[in-house]
Amino acid sequence: MIDFKFDLTDDIDGESYAGLVAQAKTLVARAEEDEFGGWVNLPKDFDRDEFVRIQKAAEKINSDSDYLVCIGIGGSYLGHRAVIEALGGERGRTKIIYAGNCLSSYALKKALAELGDADFSINVISKSGTTTEPAVAFRVFKQKLIEKYGAEEAAKRIYATTDAKKGALHDEAVANGYESFVVPDNIGGRYSVLTAVGLLPIAAAGINITSLMDGAAEERAALISDGGVAAEYAAVRNTLLSQGRDIEVLANFEPSFSYFNEWWKQLFGESEGKEGKGIFPASVIDSTDLHSMGQYLQEGRRALFETFVEIAASDDGVTVPEFGENLDGLAYLEGKELDWINKTAMEATRDAHLAGGLPILRVTMPAIDERSLGALIYFFEMSCALSGFLLGVNPFNQPGVEAYKNRMFELLGKPGYEK
Amino acid sequence: MIDFKFDLTDDIDGESYAGLVAQAKTLVARAEEDEFGGWVNLPKDFDRDEFVRIQKAAEKINSDSDYLVCIGIGGSYLGHRAVIEALGGERGRTKIIYAGNCLSSYALKKALAELGDADFSINVISKSGTTTEPAVAFRVFKQKLIEKYGAEEAAKRIYATTDAKKGALHDEAVANGYESFVVPDNIGGRYSVLTAVGLLPIAAAGINITSLMDGAAEERAALISDGGVAAEYAAVRNTLLSQGRDIEVLANFEPSFSYFNEWWKQLFGESEGKEGKGIFPASVIDSTDLHSMGQYLQEGRRALFETFVEIAASDDGVTVPEFGENLDGLAYLEGKELDWINKTAMEATRDAHLAGGLPILRVTMPAIDERSLGALIYFFEMSCALSGFLLGVNPFNQPGVEAYKNRMFELLGKPGYEK
Repeated sequence: MIDFKFDLTDDIDGESYAGLVAQAKTLVARAEEDEFGGWVNLPKDFDRDEFVRIQKAAEKINSDSDYLVCIGIGGSYLGHRAVIEALGGERGRTKIIYAGNCLSSYALKKALAELGDADFSINVISKSGTTTEPAVAFRVFKQKLIEKYGAEEAAKRIYATTDAKKGALHDEAVANGYESFVVPDNIGGRYSVLTAVGLLPIAAAGINITSLMDGAAEERAALISDGGVAAEYAAVRNTLLSQGRDIEVLANFEPSFSYFNEWWKQLFGESEGKEGKGIFPASVIDSTDLHSMGQYLQEGRRALFETFVEIAASDDGVTVPEFGENLDGLAYLEGKELDWINKTAMEATRDAHLAGGLPILRVTMPAIDERSLGALIYFFEMSCALSGFLLGVNPFNQPGVEAYKNRMFELLGKPGYEK
Repeated sequence: MIDFKFDLTDDIDGESYAGLVAQAKTLVARAEEDEFGGWVNLPKDFDRDEFVRIQKAAEKINSDSDYLVCIGIGGSYLGHRAVIEALGGERGRTKIIYAGNCLSSYALKKALAELGDADFSINVISKSGTTTEPAVAFRVFKQKLIEKYGAEEAAKRIYATTDAKKGALHDEAVANGYESFVVPDNIGGRYSVLTAVGLLPIAAAGINITSLMDGAAEERAALISDGGVAAEYAAVRNTLLSQGRDIEVLANFEPSFSYFNEWWKQLFGESEGKEGKGIFPASVIDSTDLHSMGQYLQEGRRALFETFVEIAASDDGVTVPEFGENLDGLAYLEGKELDWINKTAMEATRDAHLAGGLPILRVTMPAIDERSLGALIYFFEMSCALSGFLLGVNPFNQPGVEAYKNRMFELLGKPGYEK
């Protein structure tokens, strides 16, 4: 379902590339067998009973809530926001407020102001329940929920996505009778969007999660035997890195994909950025950023390569209006589809950047819909795992994330962290 | 008003740094004398009559419009959006819709849907009037405006920010009697936020543009003789680049600064990314991105340095709620100010990243208010000009931006661009 192509400016080391593709093909099994490889077969093997419970919870939320406050950070935040925004936002009654993803007092006040007096529910997403950002936000919104509805009704409006057996949030959910969903032990945060972590917010936004999983399952079928195009993407990334291309810029031509770009940056940055290694992941939304980062991409340092996310299907119906006069010089575009102009701009950008010395990679999804997005997610997850293995790192751990937390706990005076 | 400090991990080449600071001090005059150096004295020498007209136009817009559709791209878009969002968004009746900054049909439909049947005005911002993205959007929204109000009233609701004497938009504005404001000839797009380009949208959002200009004027006074802290920032950036640090990550701990980060990326990326040179500008919003890009920043490739934007003043009044139980382990933070926790997280991040091998630069603004933001803008503009001169490029041109446009016009079949 996902197509992958590339145009390289350099004389790429073909032998190195072929060797890396061959190596990547053997690594799918290694991902599958890893203790954090649960995402590999997830689209086929997910818990159907929990899936139905997610759909029912989403229905209830839409029946009684103007807002769902989704509390989570990192992998418990970016995946569902990426999917919901890429698909054009919420479709039903319930709007999503994202909270607990930072410590800004301004952001918290803004979220509370938006919520106002409206009816709401909470989905708190945290494997441990003790991560500072979501734990603080959960206290704030839980207090508001209890004040508004009383403790008993509030408990029916809290959905906990957390560890299946242990931890602070698990224990609280059991004690108070919150409906709970599982953050699996064998899937890391950045690979978790197709678990309950992402699926409940996505379903609550009125998006068809069955189609989303179907798309992922189709892509899995295409990649599971030998990595398919994901092995090619992983190999070409590492070949380019070995030739001095150490920044990858993901380029999207739809503003609604800005959080998808953020999800992609976490996926690759957190999987590969360790042991002093890793391609630095950056992103642009064009043609907006052709008028900001475009100059750099065209003529700045050439240590970059660019990966375009392309959409095969057309979006018809918005055309350039006709005016009698032609002061703006747009007469030649009158009646033309805007989406065609946008896709032409992308093609022109690829050509111009290639001519300017940037290797151009192209990831094409069929359309902007659930099925295509499920496939795209799975394609990038598999590519990322294979790419990390080729780089010689563990693509499933994140040992560096604790460093700032430990120092923060020390400075905040958390018991047990005094120096 | 803006404070600048740095902590370096490497044994920085002190002689090189001192030499670059000395050189930077001499370059303020060069910026001032450049044909595109109009921004240098702008905070002191701006057109007071036009400034009053901007304030009156903003009042009229707030008296008759629920929305102001701001049409512009690049430097005619990012500056005012950065200021308005950093200061918490629109304060009066009029909300801003940003259009003409891309070619997405989905984004255009979404903007039209948000606008609905509400009362609105248009601020079209384009020096030439023929840039494709804003020109297309202007046709669409102008058509809607004329349908809603008729041609005569529509002309009173269109504000054109454009060339003072010539060009498609200038000519249309004269022909139809639109109120017009000036995009100066001696200030490039990315340095234009404190001209009418940025000031009309900012004023329409209910923000005090007098204080904004006052802040910029104070910062100008601090930097004009020898570059002050801007010369230091420019020098340390170039020293780090010469030592192999070729990516700069701007780190903010307030989500409302995400468009400020985008403005900063255009300013530095477009000014320095040429002739195969330039530090690659990237950005994060923490603590959000500590849970996505944090792993890379802590342990990935060490070719980076990080610049923190810090806010000296506290934002009091949001505290961690008390609960009887302590399942989440937050009891030690009960009653503590959230802003203090956020600032402590920033301090911890600086310490952790420094210990992980990243040079840490610190730009401190007094508070999140108009005056501080005006100063911050001027500080970065001056730093960028000096830094570009030190790098040996022209920080005021953008020759590479035309490449994709020329190819696009050819593919779109624009008369005169056939191959």
